[in-house]
Amino acid sequence: METKFKNVRCKDITPSLKGKIITISGWVHQIRDLGGKKFIVLRDGSGIVQVTVSKNEVSREILDAVESATLESVVQIRGVVKEDPRAPRGVEVAPIEFKIINLARKPLPLDVSGKVSADTDTRLRERVLDLRRAEMMSVVRIGDKALKVIREALRAEGFIEVFTPKIIATATEGGASLFPVIYFGREAFLAQSPQLYKELLAASFERVFEIAPAWRAEESDTPYHLAEFISVDIEAAFMDYEDVMKILEKVVYEVVRTIRDENIDDLRTLNYDPPEVPLPLPRIRYVEAIRILQERGMNVKFGDDIGTPEQRVLASVLNTQLYFITEFPTRIRAFYTKPKDEDSEVSESFDLVWKFLELASGSSRIYEKDQLIEALKSRGMNVENFQFFIKWFDYGIPPHAGWGLGFARFLMMLTNRGSVKEVTLFPRDKKRLTP
Amino acid sequence: METKFKNVRCKDITPSLKGKIITISGWVHQIRDLGGKKFIVLRDGSGIVQVTVSKNEVSREILDAVESATLESVVQIRGVVKEDPRAPRGVEVAPIEFKIINLARKPLPLDVSGKVSADTDTRLRERVLDLRRAEMMSVVRIGDKALKVIREALRAEGFIEVFTPKIIATATEGGASLFPVIYFGREAFLAQSPQLYKELLAASFERVFEIAPAWRAEESDTPYHLAEFISVDIEAAFMDYEDVMKILEKVVYEVVRTIRDENIDDLRTLNYDPPEVPLPLPRIRYVEAIRILQERGMNVKFGDDIGTPEQRVLASVLNTQLYFITEFPTRIRAFYTKPKDEDSEVSESFDLVWKFLELASGSSRIYEKDQLIEALKSRGMNVENFQFFIKWFDYGIPPHAGWGLGFARFLMMLTNRGSVKEVTLFPRDKKRLTP
Repeated sequence: METKFKNVRCKDITPSLKGKIITISGWVHQIRDLGGKKFIVLRDGSGIVQVTVSKNEVSREILDAVESATLESVVQIRGVVKEDPRAPRGVEVAPIEFKIINLARKPLPLDVSGKVSADTDTRLRERVLDLRRAEMMSVVRIGDKALKVIREALRAEGFIEVFTPKIIATATEGGASLFPVIYFGREAFLAQSPQLYKELLAASFERVFEIAPAWRAEESDTPYHLAEFISVDIEAAFMDYEDVMKILEKVVYEVVRTIRDENIDDLRTLNYDPPEVPLPLPRIRYVEAIRILQERGMNVKFGDDIGTPEQRVLASVLNTQLYFITEFPTRIRAFYTKPKDEDSEVSESFDLVWKFLELASGSSRIYEKDQLIEALKSRGMNVENFQFFIKWFDYGIPPHAGWGLGFARFLMMLTNRGSVKEVTLFPRDKKRLTP
Repeated sequence: METKFKNVRCKDITPSLKGKIITISGWVHQIRDLGGKKFIVLRDGSGIVQVTVSKNEVSREILDAVESATLESVVQIRGVVKEDPRAPRGVEVAPIEFKIINLARKPLPLDVSGKVSADTDTRLRERVLDLRRAEMMSVVRIGDKALKVIREALRAEGFIEVFTPKIIATATEGGASLFPVIYFGREAFLAQSPQLYKELLAASFERVFEIAPAWRAEESDTPYHLAEFISVDIEAAFMDYEDVMKILEKVVYEVVRTIRDENIDDLRTLNYDPPEVPLPLPRIRYVEAIRILQERGMNVKFGDDIGTPEQRVLASVLNTQLYFITEFPTRIRAFYTKPKDEDSEVSESFDLVWKFLELASGSSRIYEKDQLIEALKSRGMNVENFQFFIKWFDYGIPPHAGWGLGFARFLMMLTNRGSVKEVTLFPRDKKRLTP
C-alpha cells in the first residue's frame, strides 16, 4: 500500500525501477564514508537498499541531513533508482530529498548491524534493537511462515480453529506449576494447556486446533523452558494416537518443505539448512528405546523419563534427526491418556523428538467415564475438581486423540538457535517480566 | 484421512458413492420411527447423513443396537450408500453393522436438534451440547473462516504474525480493570491489550499482527463485554490512521465477501444474509457526529462518548450498517494516541461501528519522546512505570498506527447473534469461570 511515507518497500526496489523517482522510509542500518561518496544502507521491514550520496552532486541541505543521521535513525528519502552492479541486488538510490523523522541517540546499547555480538541477557534487555538484527528478522519471518503452513495443513484435514479459555478454575494435569490469578476476588489459574477444553470441543466439532499462549511456572532456567509459551494444539474425534501422529509428521514435513522452498534468503542469513523430513518418520516404542539405551550402558529403566542425553543417543542409533517415541508407561503420562486395551501398563502415547528435544507430545485419550474416574483416583487426584469435565462423558464423548507442540521449540530447531528465549519476542521466565 | 473409525465424513457422502460400502462415525442427531423403518440422522463435524434401517431387512443384532441408541450416543456404522431423493442431499446409508461406541444418558439436559430452545444461562451451562447445535456449528465455522481470511488479507499487505507477552508488569492504558497474577511471588497483570508491545514490534518489523486473548475485569454484565476476549491487532510503521483504516475496511470487506461466497449453508442455517461491504466505508468526524446527534435532540456534547443509542442514530442518518467515526477528542483517547498537528484537542483516531456496536478502535500513535511523556503527565499517569516503553523512543521509533478489533463482536455481527457470549466457546465473565 502506498502511503505518504513510502511508495515502495526496500526489497521491491529492483533494476526494473531504473530512472524512477521513489519515496522510501526506514531505519539507517549502516553508514560508510568513502570521501567523495557516502553510502547509507536503509532498512525497512522487508529488507535493505543502498542509498548513495555523491557529496558534490547533492544540495547542502541533503548533505547536512545525511551528516547528522545516526545509526537506527528513522529517515524518509525521495530519490532516483540507479543501476549499480556493486550495490546489493544491483540497485542504489540517489537522494533528491533526505528527511530525518526521528534521530536515534548514540551510542546504541546494542549493535544492530550484527558485527558486534552480545550475550543473551544483553540481547533480551535491549530486545527492540536486537529484533532489528538480520538474524532475528529471519527467525520471525520463518516463524510467521511456519504458523501459516501449520494452519493450512490442519485446515486441509478438516480442522477448525478455536480458542479455549485461559483463565480456569482447576489444574488440568495435576497441581504443579500454575500461576494463580485473582479473578473478581476469587482464586483461579492460568491454563497450562487447553487439554480438557480441546477434548470437549472435539466432542462437538470433531476436529479442532488452537494456537495460543499457555503458562507453566517453571522454576528452572533452561534453554528449553518458558513461563509463557505458544502451544500448537490439535484434538480429533474418531482418531487414535497413530492417526494424529500421521497428522503431526505431515505438519512438520509441510513446514520444513515450505521454508526450504520459500525462505531461502532467511536460511542463508541464519547459515542453516534444515534437513528434509522423510515420511513416515521412524517410530520406536518406549520399551525398545529403554532396551537400546541400556545396551549402550545408560542407567535407565522402564518408568524413567527419556531426557535430552538419552534422546541424543536414540537419534544417533536411529540415524535420524526426527523420530517418534511411542507407547510410554501409563503411569508417567497424564491421567487422560488412554492405556492400551491389551496391556494397561503401556499407553497409546507418543513424543516427537528433534535430535535432543521433545517438540510435541500426544496420545489417544480415555473416552469412557469409569476408566477416566479410575485414572484420576489411581493418581491420587480429586475427582470432584474435574466434575465440569467428567459430566460430559455421560453425553456422547467419542474416541479421540491429539497432541500439543511447543511452537518456540519447533522454531528454535527450524532456525538452529540455541534457546527458546532467543526465538520468543519478549520471553517470560522467573527473572524476566520486562521488557 | 481414513481411520479405523471412518473412511468418509457425513458431508462427503453423495450420490456418486451409490452402491459403495462405507464406514462412518458420529453422534445420533435424530431418531424417527415409522413402523417398518427407523431413520437415524447421524452427525459428525462436517454435517449430517440419514441412516435408514428397514426393520425386516436387517439382523436382530443391528435392530437391538439401533433400538438401544439414544440421542447424542456415539456410534459407528458400516453400510451401503443408496440414492433416495427424499433424504437430505439425496442419499441414505443402509447399515450392515451398527456399533454403539458410547451410549448417551437420557434425557439430555439440552436439546441438540434445535427444536426446544433454551435460555442463555442454560445454554452456557450445558455448553458442550449447545455447541453441537447446527446454529453453533455454523457460527464456529464462520469464525474459523473469518480468522483465515483476516490473516490472509493482512499477510497480503506484508504483515507478519507475532505473539506478545500476556503477563505484564504495568497497566497499559491506565490502571483500571486489570486481573492480577501472582508471578513467582511478585504481582503482575494480565495484558488488557498488546498495545505497547505491538508498537515496539512495529518499530522492528514494520508491519505486525496478532490474534490472541486479552483480559479486562469488566464488572458489568452486558451482551457486548467479556472478561477474556480475542483481540485482532495490527500495528504498522510508516502508516497513519487513514492508512490503517483502509486496511481495516479491506479486511472486513474480504471476510464478509468470503463468507457470503463460501459459507452459504451456514448462513442459511443462521437465517442471515450479511450485507455487502461498500468500499470505502462512510467516514464521519466526531465533531460532525456530535452536531448531527444534537440536531436530532440527543443530549451529547464535545468530549462525551458516543455509545450504542447514538451509534444507532448515526447509522440511520448515514444510511449504512458500517461506518467510521474519526478524529475523537484527544482527552478521551489513550495516552499513546497522536493529536492532530494542526489542532491538538482532536486526535488522529477512529472507531469502526457496525450498526450499534463498536467493532474496532485505532489511531496514529505518538512517536516523539517529549510528546509521549507530556501525554502521560497530562493524564496524571506515572511516567516511571512506562520507562520500559519510553526508553525505545531514543532509538528510532517511526511514525506508526494501528487498530484492535474485538473478534467476538465481529463474529456476533457476522452471524447476527445477540451477544458476544453466545459466539464465544466458553465465555468468561464475572459469574462464569466454568465450564
